Amino acid sequence: MLDRKDGRPLHRQVAESLRREILGHDLPPGSTLPSEAELCSRFGVGRSVVRQAVAGLAADGLVIRRQGRPTVVAAPTEYRRLVQRATGLFEQFARRGHDIRTTVLELVEATPPEPARASLGTKACLRLERVRLLDDEPLSYVRTWLPAARVPDLRAEDLVDASLHRLLSHRYGLRPVSGQRQVRAVAADERLASALAIDPGTPLLLLEGETADQHGRPLEWFSAWHRSDRVVFDIDVSETAETLTLDTLPKAEGTESGGKPRPAERDLARARELVEELRTLLG
Amino acid sequence: MLDRKDGRPLHRQVAESLRREILGHDLPPGSTLPSEAELCSRFGVGRSVVRQAVAGLAADGLVIRRQGRPTVVAAPTEYRRLVQRATGLFEQFARRGHDIRTTVLELVEATPPEPARASLGTKACLRLERVRLLDDEPLSYVRTWLPAARVPDLRAEDLVDASLHRLLSHRYGLRPVSGQRQVRAVAADERLASALAIDPGTPLLLLEGETADQHGRPLEWFSAWHRSDRVVFDIDVSETAETLTLDTLPKAEGTESGGKPRPAERDLARARELVEELRTLLG
Repeated sequence: MLDRKDGRPLHRQVAESLRREILGHDLPPGSTLPSEAELCSRFGVGRSVVRQAVAGLAADGLVIRRQGRPTVVAAPTEYRRLVQRATGLFEQFARRGHDIRTTVLELVEATPPEPARASLGTKACLRLERVRLLDDEPLSYVRTWLPAARVPDLRAEDLVDASLHRLLSHRYGLRPVSGQRQVRAVAADERLASALAIDPGTPLLLLEGETADQHGRPLEWFSAWHRSDRVVFDIDVSETAETLTLDTLPKAEGTESGGKPRPAERDLARARELVEELRTLLG
Repeated sequence: MLDRKDGRPLHRQVAESLRREILGHDLPPGSTLPSEAELCSRFGVGRSVVRQAVAGLAADGLVIRRQGRPTVVAAPTEYRRLVQRATGLFEQFARRGHDIRTTVLELVEATPPEPARASLGTKACLRLERVRLLDDEPLSYVRTWLPAARVPDLRAEDLVDASLHRLLSHRYGLRPVSGQRQVRAVAADERLASALAIDPGTPLLLLEGETADQHGRPLEWFSAWHRSDRVVFDIDVSETAETLTLDTLPKAEGTESGGKPRPAERDLARARELVEELRTLLG
């Protein structure tokens, strides 16, 4: 399994292989590490090599050794972002008591790339480049394109340690409401790596999309690269969305014959929810 | 900018640097490449080096050169997955006419890691390992934990080129309905890289979560690693979700004074939607 011609010590090679499995979630947090005997046979090394490798992982905080019980993969500190809401990182984290800081790297007039231009319907844009930090450690790098005519007199100072969405809403009366988002995994290039204090090539969680205001008009087009060791995107899969999905299925062949799913009851339950929401809305 | 002591030809170094910016979406699809003159000055190289670098990117399909017009970053072929729905990859892609294939690598009784055990409420589980392919090229690697007692007589053959969710629904009357999902960017370890036919270290888009059935009981716990060069996750940010979010805001200070957002009207519009949905539901 190990390359004995590799210059590095065997325990480093074993640790590195396990580290990749832990970071790739092939060995997810909370799972038990294979036993020493299993690791010895898998890597073809002695027990002392395995022990040294596991000690190294424990020192890095990747695993937790417990007296007389199997070693488990540690759960890292991660910050969660709800991505199906238009609210920005700032609001979401502030609401949970996190102190998020923002550095503005640049706010300039510039021509956006074609997809942003098509979305915003204008070439006359502002390009805003920001780094968001949590506990003085970079969390994300955000590039936002804004139609210049909609945000007159916007200055970089306005956005230091502040929320763009709050500013748009309070000063310009433009409330970010809806939009499409795409999530990708990309490798950090040199510029992003340096801004986020990580190594080039590190996976980043990229959130891209456009946001429209309360009148349905395009308001921003952004790319936000998140450090994957610190940020996880949360998504809530709701029965409502599922119900809507099933409705568009070409044919729900056989679903009824299973006996369990009862569309009529489901519809009735949904109807009760709607009535409840209506009651709340209309007082 | 370039390391002249680096053994590789200069044009290769320029191409590699631009390639990283394109793959990292720092230069997103549809954006124009900086002009030859700009690239010459940025990298400190001559025009022939820049031309050779750009020709290499064009040959790899990363950029599109156009007669008399600026070179643009190409949009790669990507498959989109809606992640806020409980429906699996199979249904989503089949509905759009894609022919998705599934290889079952393993279906065995096994003890799940702690988070899966806690979610499923049992140690007696089946571990299912699958690779999904599109056009004979791997798209994702999926590990699913199922409570053994809920899927008696499940066999690997049942799942070859088939949908697990459809099988659960049709044979067992268990309809995957709701759940929580997390999205992460992780680097492929050797095992995942080999199964997905990519290089170790390549960023993967990891979708993890649990799914409950129509009775709210836990049905599956899964990790699905997607090739980030082929798959993008789509998220729809709806006004509904946003409305609900705003309701939980500590205080919408100043929002009204902006003059533009009128909560009463918004509520009324939402009420109309609800009534419409009710009408459809109840016939």
